[in-house]
Amino acid sequence: MAKVGLVMGSISDWPTMQLAAELLADLGVTYERRVISAHRMPATLQTYGEQAQERGLDVIIAGAGGAAHLPGMLAANTVIPVIGVPIQSRALNGLDSLLSIVQMPGGVPVATMAIGKAGAKNAALMAAQILGLHDQKIQQAILDFRQQQRQEAEQSERQF
Amino acid sequence: MAKVGLVMGSISDWPTMQLAAELLADLGVTYERRVISAHRMPATLQTYGEQAQERGLDVIIAGAGGAAHLPGMLAANTVIPVIGVPIQSRALNGLDSLLSIVQMPGGVPVATMAIGKAGAKNAALMAAQILGLHDQKIQQAILDFRQQQRQEAEQSERQF
Amino acid sequence: MAKVGLVMGSISDWPTMQLAAELLADLGVTYERRVISAHRMPATLQTYGEQAQERGLDVIIAGAGGAAHLPGMLAANTVIPVIGVPIQSRALNGLDSLLSIVQMPGGVPVATMAIGKAGAKNAALMAAQILGLHDQKIQQAILDFRQQQRQEAEQSERQF
Amino acid sequence: MAKVGLVMGSISDWPTMQLAAELLADLGVTYERRVISAHRMPATLQTYGEQAQERGLDVIIAGAGGAAHLPGMLAANTVIPVIGVPIQSRALNGLDSLLSIVQMPGGVPVATMAIGKAGAKNAALMAAQILGLHDQKIQQAILDFRQQQRQEAEQSERQF
Amino acid sequence: MAKVGLVMGSISDWPTMQLAAELLADLGVTYERRVISAHRMPATLQTYGEQAQERGLDVIIAGAGGAAHLPGMLAANTVIPVIGVPIQSRALNGLDSLLSIVQMPGGVPVATMAIGKAGAKNAALMAAQILGLHDQKIQQAILDFRQQQRQEAEQSERQF
Amino acid sequence: MAKVGLVMGSISDWPTMQLAAELLADLGVTYERRVISAHRMPATLQTYGEQAQERGLDVIIAGAGGAAHLPGMLAANTVIPVIGVPIQSRALNGLDSLLSIVQMPGGVPVATMAIGKAGAKNAALMAAQILGLHDQKIQQAILDFRQQQRQEAEQSERQF
Amino acid sequence: MAKVGLVMGSISDWPTMQLAAELLADLGVTYERRVISAHRMPATLQTYGEQAQERGLDVIIAGAGGAAHLPGMLAANTVIPVIGVPIQSRALNGLDSLLSIVQMPGGVPVATMAIGKAGAKNAALMAAQILGLHDQKIQQAILDFRQQQRQEAEQSERQF
Amino acid sequence: MAKVGLVMGSISDWPTMQLAAELLADLGVTYERRVISAHRMPATLQTYGEQAQERGLDVIIAGAGGAAHLPGMLAANTVIPVIGVPIQSRALNGLDSLLSIVQMPGGVPVATMAIGKAGAKNAALMAAQILGLHDQKIQQAILDFRQQQRQEAEQSERQF
Repeated sequence: MAKVGLVMGSISDWPTMQLAAELLADLGVTYERRVISAHRMPATLQTYGEQAQERGLDVIIAGAGGAAHLPGMLAANTVIPVIGVPIQSRALNGLDSLLSIVQMPGGVPVATMAIGKAGAKNAALMAAQILGLHDQKIQQAILDFRQQQRQEAEQSERQF
Repeated sequence: MAKVGLVMGSISDWPTMQLAAELLADLGVTYERRVISAHRMPATLQTYGEQAQERGLDVIIAGAGGAAHLPGMLAANTVIPVIGVPIQSRALNGLDSLLSIVQMPGGVPVATMAIGKAGAKNAALMAAQILGLHDQKIQQAILDFRQQQRQEAEQSERQF
Repeated sequence: MAKVGLVMGSISDWPTMQLAAELLADLGVTYERRVISAHRMPATLQTYGEQAQERGLDVIIAGAGGAAHLPGMLAANTVIPVIGVPIQSRALNGLDSLLSIVQMPGGVPVATMAIGKAGAKNAALMAAQILGLHDQKIQQAILDFRQQQRQEAEQSERQF
Repeated sequence: MAKVGLVMGSISDWPTMQLAAELLADLGVTYERRVISAHRMPATLQTYGEQAQERGLDVIIAGAGGAAHLPGMLAANTVIPVIGVPIQSRALNGLDSLLSIVQMPGGVPVATMAIGKAGAKNAALMAAQILGLHDQKIQQAILDFRQQQRQEAEQSERQF
Repeated sequence: MAKVGLVMGSISDWPTMQLAAELLADLGVTYERRVISAHRMPATLQTYGEQAQERGLDVIIAGAGGAAHLPGMLAANTVIPVIGVPIQSRALNGLDSLLSIVQMPGGVPVATMAIGKAGAKNAALMAAQILGLHDQKIQQAILDFRQQQRQEAEQSERQF
Repeated sequence: MAKVGLVMGSISDWPTMQLAAELLADLGVTYERRVISAHRMPATLQTYGEQAQERGLDVIIAGAGGAAHLPGMLAANTVIPVIGVPIQSRALNGLDSLLSIVQMPGGVPVATMAIGKAGAKNAALMAAQILGLHDQKIQQAILDFRQQQRQEAEQSERQF
Repeated sequence: MAKVGLVMGSISDWPTMQLAAELLADLGVTYERRVISAHRMPATLQTYGEQAQERGLDVIIAGAGGAAHLPGMLAANTVIPVIGVPIQSRALNGLDSLLSIVQMPGGVPVATMAIGKAGAKNAALMAAQILGLHDQKIQQAILDFRQQQRQEAEQSERQF
Repeated sequence: MAKVGLVMGSISDWPTMQLAAELLADLGVTYERRVISAHRMPATLQTYGEQAQERGLDVIIAGAGGAAHLPGMLAANTVIPVIGVPIQSRALNGLDSLLSIVQMPGGVPVATMAIGKAGAKNAALMAAQILGLHDQKIQQAILDFRQQQRQEAEQSERQF
């Protein structure tokens, strides 16, 4: 059963969100992936948010670009943590996506990540860090990932 | 029966949206006013959008600030024109509100106005211009308003 | 007889504005297209605005980039709704176009769309939504378009 | 024993972070509060991050302004979730704080909230939502808070 | 006979544009002042631009805020130099005014000054520098003004 | 004898400034071209500014990018009009160049043009407009150029 | 004999630059203070830069706002380190000052500090850190200052 | 023994930081180069900062992108001058890097350079200028470099 709902506003967000999917898999986190356009499928969005917890999800990761309403509207319909990934938009490079996701009013938070691929990767890690609080295996996977990152960074010096 | 739905995300938006209300009244346009928080009342928002047309509304004016999802989510649930007013936010002066409203993806438009009070006033005028296409009285009221504006601008020179 | 005037500031805006033209056609909305440079053809601009309504136009769509004066100056010369499309500019990616179009002073509104192609597409939809208030056929076309969009979004999940 | 570490870069951040503290208390979430300047007390920062989990913390909330390094450096030293609150800065209104917190490189996420007081409030809610996944009482408190918010929003209409 | 046309989009721009007027007077440059709203008085704007040269004007100074179309549209209707002053706007502090004035397309230039009062003062100086090319008295007045500025700056050190 | 000094901060600005040079030639305006780096050749810069008028120049056009000090420092050393062209910079797309040139303090104006090639072209036109005030031939050349522009814009419609 | 030249573009910058002066005094660093307007006193600026080293200065601190050319032009005329302080400007809050100072072309660096008072304070510290490399007393003063800062930050927790 | 520590947050910053390395070598400044990720190797970062001076370094040059914490955290752990180079980031072109580096709070300065390659080059020069205060050979190398730059700029005119 999926623990994380990986949702994107459009199939065109997949090249970015794919990095979240791959890292979730690497960390041993089960997930389902969905395309739910906030503006084209508003009823689906609402139902997805409302049923997320009872369907067993613990975290939602939502990626969207431009006037990126998906993460915030999902957050409005659930009390499980929602992580937002601002997709890098064409004209404004994701600054619009970032502000549309992060500037939520007091009362309904979205845990916002960096713009683009780094943000997608970090969304997977944040989801895993949340789940890892009560799942030793996932937390160990994060610790292993961190160590591996450190080693890669250290070893990269040899490339000089 | 109200022709325009004047909606705001929070009662704190009223000092701005009041200018829209007053100008609608001056132009003889009937309206109803509502507070519908996109993030606190998502189900109400959806219902309001879905029923807008059958309830006789021809235009929705929606004001919101920060991650301003209200106009776009109303637009996603109706095919009558939705006019968005970016409220001037505390930290980013409404730049966040503007981008969250105007940068809608292809498929669901929001007719975006200027940030703050000028935008609220213009939302009323835009609503009246739409209604005026099929309502001689409203169009005449706009023409009178325009003439009055021009005269005031011309007469302001005498203040030198 | 054309219901929508599709105007652009330069023939170089056509790759963007073409999306508006195509969608208007798809939705069964008649339109005429014009190149009117606000700065090179100011008298033509003024005449076009002044005569728009008597020539039978109900809506003007105006695309312009940089110091994008075309939509606002057309709006100053008519009381039919003017929809503005900020063209993505070279240096500032359309942020200049957006602010020049949306930040109209109180009294003369321009219904501003997103920067670039999404905005052009949405301008066509907004024009159709306005016309659709009194034209069942156009409104049905919008409803069909919306449904098709929803289906495409839903079906895109199968691409995973 | 505290479940949340509420950390700020300077005592001058307290007027903002106080909203997080109050809401944590209202939601029944235990917390400790600390002033740890990333630049004046870097060794303390590192120790705090390293020992956070073994000391029983499940979540860290970190508020900082300007070149806001506190949240990211705490996140670098722990695998429990770190929530960042961009303090509204004097010159750039918190845009610098926001970018310094949210634009973390792939590998070390910070769950970023809105600039200023709304962000502080939402940091408390996000912490509670994370804890609520395994604490029925906290989750109920969030649900009650949400309902109260909705009611307040609905009742605010009567102020017209 | 006035050599400079000092035009502003609204009487509310006068506190800024007054600095231009005073400095023109100090430098011995004759001017006329006008309020011409680009959006409320478009026909007046066009006529003013078209007749500027035959009426004896050598330079136009135009101040406007927000979607500041006045300087560019005057420039489109005349071949005498037009100097633009971006008025400091409420929400975006004049960044919108600046971009709307300076980002003119190739073919129709506006000589853009700094945002606000410094810009108004400099517009007067730039007008005088242009006129001074063929008017010894004005050029001497500028040289005197420069020397006075230098002396004031030098003497300000004594305030320590 | 050259009437216009066409100066750039680096030979790498030539692809942009070339458009000014070509248009000056087309309009029959004599010019000299120079590379003067404000930061590498500060003494040359100062001398060039100080001697500009006595050497017979009536206008200086200065293009520079990034921390673009060239136009402002030339303006500080002469009382003939200085026109600034913000070169499109690598990282910030010329926003830095624009602000460094246009935000001059009260007392020393720079007539700022649009970022990049449009700005270079317009710098030539502005110089010609200034010279045209006392040179019938140049003014006629501008009028011809304007007419040609208008015709090209009008004829571009046939490309549809 | 002064080791640091503390220069500002205008006496109005003193409320900011005063913090640099006071901290230099506290750290035992000798300094002279000057008002040198880059645009009003360009020859003085150049001389000051050229003679800085022979007059015994080791570091220049230069504060300026808007199109802040002072630090960069001083740097162009000397090979001792120049530290730039962007003064918080009226319209753009110092973003213009920051970009005008920091975006120097390759070849002539300015060591740029934060906008406003924090930057002024840090300019004094950076100057002291440079001098402290060869002056044990100054370096000890910095170490003492750091320790005092740390203690103040630590003790501020007791204010809760 | 190395006088300058050339540190970068990731091996991917090398194409930028390489320009600093090459120029240091050209100026006869000894340096060591390191990859130290602030977020992946926080303990290494702290140790490097703490031991920098005793290991004989006089200056640290640190390049980082996005939420660029490396320069500021090194500065927090040493009293030798730290020079920061904002790497040009993918989404926001280095504006995030710049603000994260330059907007340090009062008490811990980072000498910030321009975004990208110009900044890397200038970091090397600034380091040399600092060392040159007490090293005649390095200062002469800078003077030679400056002269060469000036000659290249002057000779570039011949390319016309």
